[in-house]
Amino acid sequence: MKFYDAPPAPSPRRVRMFLAEKGLAVETVNLDLTKGEQLSEAFRAKNPRCTVPVLELDDGTCLTESLSICHYLESLHPEPNLMGEGAKEQALVLMWNDIAMFNGFAAAGEALRNFAKMFRQRSVTGPNDYPQIPELAERGRLRTEHFLAELNERLAASEYLASGRFTMADITAYICVEFAGWIKVSIADEQAHLRRWFDAVGSRPSAAA
Amino acid sequence: MKFYDAPPAPSPRRVRMFLAEKGLAVETVNLDLTKGEQLSEAFRAKNPRCTVPVLELDDGTCLTESLSICHYLESLHPEPNLMGEGAKEQALVLMWNDIAMFNGFAAAGEALRNFAKMFRQRSVTGPNDYPQIPELAERGRLRTEHFLAELNERLAASEYLASGRFTMADITAYICVEFAGWIKVSIADEQAHLRRWFDAVGSRPSAAA
Repeated sequence: MKFYDAPPAPSPRRVRMFLAEKGLAVETVNLDLTKGEQLSEAFRAKNPRCTVPVLELDDGTCLTESLSICHYLESLHPEPNLMGEGAKEQALVLMWNDIAMFNGFAAAGEALRNFAKMFRQRSVTGPNDYPQIPELAERGRLRTEHFLAELNERLAASEYLASGRFTMADITAYICVEFAGWIKVSIADEQAHLRRWFDAVGSRPSAAA
Repeated sequence: MKFYDAPPAPSPRRVRMFLAEKGLAVETVNLDLTKGEQLSEAFRAKNPRCTVPVLELDDGTCLTESLSICHYLESLHPEPNLMGEGAKEQALVLMWNDIAMFNGFAAAGEALRNFAKMFRQRSVTGPNDYPQIPELAERGRLRTEHFLAELNERLAASEYLASGRFTMADITAYICVEFAGWIKVSIADEQAHLRRWFDAVGSRPSAAA
């Protein structure tokens, strides 16, 4: 098994944190995205979408998309459980993971990629160039602020996102909140529930991964 | 269990098709999105994100996000299997489901919502208004075209998306291709693999759901 990573990008960081929670070490190849290594012919053969992370299995199958990779790792190494126990908790983990992806990750990503100079023609990840849309940077910021408010509301009612305990959904959302910092959206003073949760997740050893 | 649906919206259609494949009937409440019923106080109490589908469980838990709902239904009714058998196939189903969501669904959605008059202030689903960005409609169209090309390439190598057999990933991608039709992006004559697969999925009785 080989893991294609690219610090400091947020998506592969989800897999690193997941691996750390599981106590797993996987052979890792680091790509330098600033040099466009994800667009090379060699990497494109593994992932035509030119995104990280990728987990290459021993039979040559390349898994892309963090959720897919984490689900695979959980199947092989069920403990500690991070994807939920039983039908309902598993569904809630997938649900909050998707909410974080669509409302948080996508929002902060469009804010960053439609603003930062290095992404001028690269407003969407992948093999195709798309020029920046400045209005989208602004909309992405607003949506990210709304996402943080939504997290705070949920965390007023639940210690962790999907249930009363730490799961994969918390990994995704935690890295979204970190990622929001890249576009200067941060936890507001009155978002005490979000702050409590963010500090709790941030104090886990896996957060250093 | 109660299913909140809203024909003809594409997201709840994924769950309807999944239910039909399983041969399940669930008590259904239809929302009229053109009247903004998803924004009512009553519905917001079930899903603060004001999106469909929602599956309300007997204990009052409301599952949102199609993947979460389908995973829950599969846990309760494992046959016929739609989410994959074993670690690798399950991972490939989640992977292709996410690729279809991020590269297809999101793209066609932004093309539609940033163009159609009825969404003038509603360029993003959910409780908050965001005005349209016309450039994003154009970018969404382009991305949808690239997504269809990507599907065609995958389907040249595999009979169905995740593996050699029909799964949840095919439901998601099939409804994406249908949805692309709403923005007048359709299968090109030379995309024979995509056409073969689209016709095969479309001939399943569940496609009428």
